Amino acid sequence: MTIDRQSLYRSLARPADSRILYYVIDGIGGLPREPGGGTELEAAVTPTLDRLADEGSTGLITPVAPGVAPGSGPGHLSLFGFDPLATLVGRGVLETLGIGFELRPGDVAARINFCTLDGRGNVTDRRAGRISSEVGAPLAERLDGIEVGGDVTCLVRHVKEYRACVIFRGAGLDGRIADTDPQVTGVPPEVPVHLDPAAERTAQLAAEFIAAATARLAGEERANGILLRGFDSFHGLPGLEELYRLKAAAVAAYPMYRGVARAVGMTVFESADTLASRVELTREALGAHDFVFVHFKATDSRGEDGDFDAKVEQIEAADQTLAALLALDFDVVAVTGDHSTPATYRAHSWHPIPVLIWGPHCRANGATGFGETACLQGALGQIRSMDVLPLVLAQAGRLEKFGA
Amino acid sequence: MTIDRQSLYRSLARPADSRILYYVIDGIGGLPREPGGGTELEAAVTPTLDRLADEGSTGLITPVAPGVAPGSGPGHLSLFGFDPLATLVGRGVLETLGIGFELRPGDVAARINFCTLDGRGNVTDRRAGRISSEVGAPLAERLDGIEVGGDVTCLVRHVKEYRACVIFRGAGLDGRIADTDPQVTGVPPEVPVHLDPAAERTAQLAAEFIAAATARLAGEERANGILLRGFDSFHGLPGLEELYRLKAAAVAAYPMYRGVARAVGMTVFESADTLASRVELTREALGAHDFVFVHFKATDSRGEDGDFDAKVEQIEAADQTLAALLALDFDVVAVTGDHSTPATYRAHSWHPIPVLIWGPHCRANGATGFGETACLQGALGQIRSMDVLPLVLAQAGRLEKFGA
Repeated sequence: MTIDRQSLYRSLARPADSRILYYVIDGIGGLPREPGGGTELEAAVTPTLDRLADEGSTGLITPVAPGVAPGSGPGHLSLFGFDPLATLVGRGVLETLGIGFELRPGDVAARINFCTLDGRGNVTDRRAGRISSEVGAPLAERLDGIEVGGDVTCLVRHVKEYRACVIFRGAGLDGRIADTDPQVTGVPPEVPVHLDPAAERTAQLAAEFIAAATARLAGEERANGILLRGFDSFHGLPGLEELYRLKAAAVAAYPMYRGVARAVGMTVFESADTLASRVELTREALGAHDFVFVHFKATDSRGEDGDFDAKVEQIEAADQTLAALLALDFDVVAVTGDHSTPATYRAHSWHPIPVLIWGPHCRANGATGFGETACLQGALGQIRSMDVLPLVLAQAGRLEKFGA
Repeated sequence: MTIDRQSLYRSLARPADSRILYYVIDGIGGLPREPGGGTELEAAVTPTLDRLADEGSTGLITPVAPGVAPGSGPGHLSLFGFDPLATLVGRGVLETLGIGFELRPGDVAARINFCTLDGRGNVTDRRAGRISSEVGAPLAERLDGIEVGGDVTCLVRHVKEYRACVIFRGAGLDGRIADTDPQVTGVPPEVPVHLDPAAERTAQLAAEFIAAATARLAGEERANGILLRGFDSFHGLPGLEELYRLKAAAVAAYPMYRGVARAVGMTVFESADTLASRVELTREALGAHDFVFVHFKATDSRGEDGDFDAKVEQIEAADQTLAALLALDFDVVAVTGDHSTPATYRAHSWHPIPVLIWGPHCRANGATGFGETACLQGALGQIRSMDVLPLVLAQAGRLEKFGA
């Protein structure tokens, strides 16, 4: 008899009085700017991170698999204890979660691109001339609420510029449907084709939605049609309370992170992108929660900009925020990132991410401070992102012994 | 929904202009000759390996599982990105690939031992008095081309001394057949027994082949019979182009390595066992390929001889070959071995193998040079052999991001 990983932890989880800070510094991992130099984290002055690393245990984590750079969705689901390869969430669902939309199990989501159609219905521009958000937002609103099949509502939300998403809500829906984007111009959009017999009706409803939406866009010069991609059913994920008996809250300034947090049952506190707001909302969250996920975004953004020095500055700001959060009195603190975003690489990368866990029962590391090279000798070793939460639960006295 | 490892990488792979050198120094890993001493690699003077290690990232790799010494087949398949426990290839197939025979999907291969039978058909020597290759080779040739069942050809190739292999080629064959070697003397060979109903006809054809072969050996004093072992169907493996969109070539002097390379779709360049030949063929391969696997054999052979100093010399020769290869201008270079062959152990061993990856986006190691102890603090950590290729693809800009 075999027990799977999720069932193992679920069976061992027990409630406790301990309070946990789960602090994600987005894209914290980096690379040296020049051979022999330090990374962004190694260049930054981070007295609080260094102290926690020295009092606690450090290591390096791989989010998905060696060589694989994760998006924010799988990066965070891994940190929340989910195996990212066993918890595939389609792009339509991720995009919808990412704008903070509250999906319900059974919903089918897809991405919308506004497009330009000529008089014969052929696509002439797959992105509708890259219309601005000012143009796209009211168009998305115009499509919201179309009813199809008598019992299915199509909720449309604007994402950015020529992009939006549609959520089909009703009974018996199935997201196994092919894209309608033909990928080339000069041909009409594809009709929605079901990839599984169970999705036949949903594909018909999607076709009805496209017809109704196109009618509502008639007369628009550039955005007079839509292309649908990334159809996916939202099955729901078990929440952190159900899995780990945690009362979990999220403090995050950006919709993507609030969306992922909500998907795993966290109570979401929408913060401003400031130290004061993060600390104040964390204080508030601690009233009714014992686990607070705090998200710090700017490190990733500066990495994507390719601005090494600005990322160093943001890591220092994240360190100062951490110092202020610690005044709220936690029993266990974890600090890490959802992925690396080296400024020299200007994108999410596959490099393992530094992690530290600070708590009452920590082994000493083989090197001091919090940096990529020091973490090579950390007491946690080189592990998977999904293993961080169980180690935190153990530090917090929240996992029973396995077996007699 | 779950995605398996191979599908994950296949879905993320994208072509790029980058050129990759994949340099396998067979059996490179070793052990100290005396307590406190260095390994063969640590004793060798290897300026090029040391420089690439310091500019790149190092680590240690385990080919199959802790404690398991691999043969050359699984050792190389792991380096080519295959999970060796999910890519079982039977001994008959490996032996056949190992002599450079070009198997086709659907072929069934088995190993042959020539044996001695007495007048009543009982086995008196399971290895035919260990006849020499000079005796064995023409006997194998004598058995080649036997036809059975009207539509199946039995191709026989000599391997070494009393060993050969047979390839059954025809439609509808199935290799799930038990060995005919009785493992003891004084009894007749077993008849081929099918282990699955689908293999019933193939087992009958194997019996026909044995009868015809024994007739052709009548009058031989020692090798007047055959025993068949390791029956296996060859299903074919997906190639590196299909899996990773690599145009892959192999430069190798020995048939075993050419066989494994061919099995994963590489174009094979048969080199002499010299620096000049390896470099010239690699240059030629780069004309139409972007990934070149170069195999260096003598390190393993000297390890199996138990000759520490000779293995040190061969590691130095491998280092000089590497220096010459680098002049051909690669974007990413990986150097490792398919297994360790410590001279003190005189055989393939289970010890993790030093690995280095050199490319544009490398983290610094915690120690300098290329040796087993330094690699303990390498930035790649301690990983599996099958994870080396994905890390190389990432360095080469050949893997997309996973998830939004």
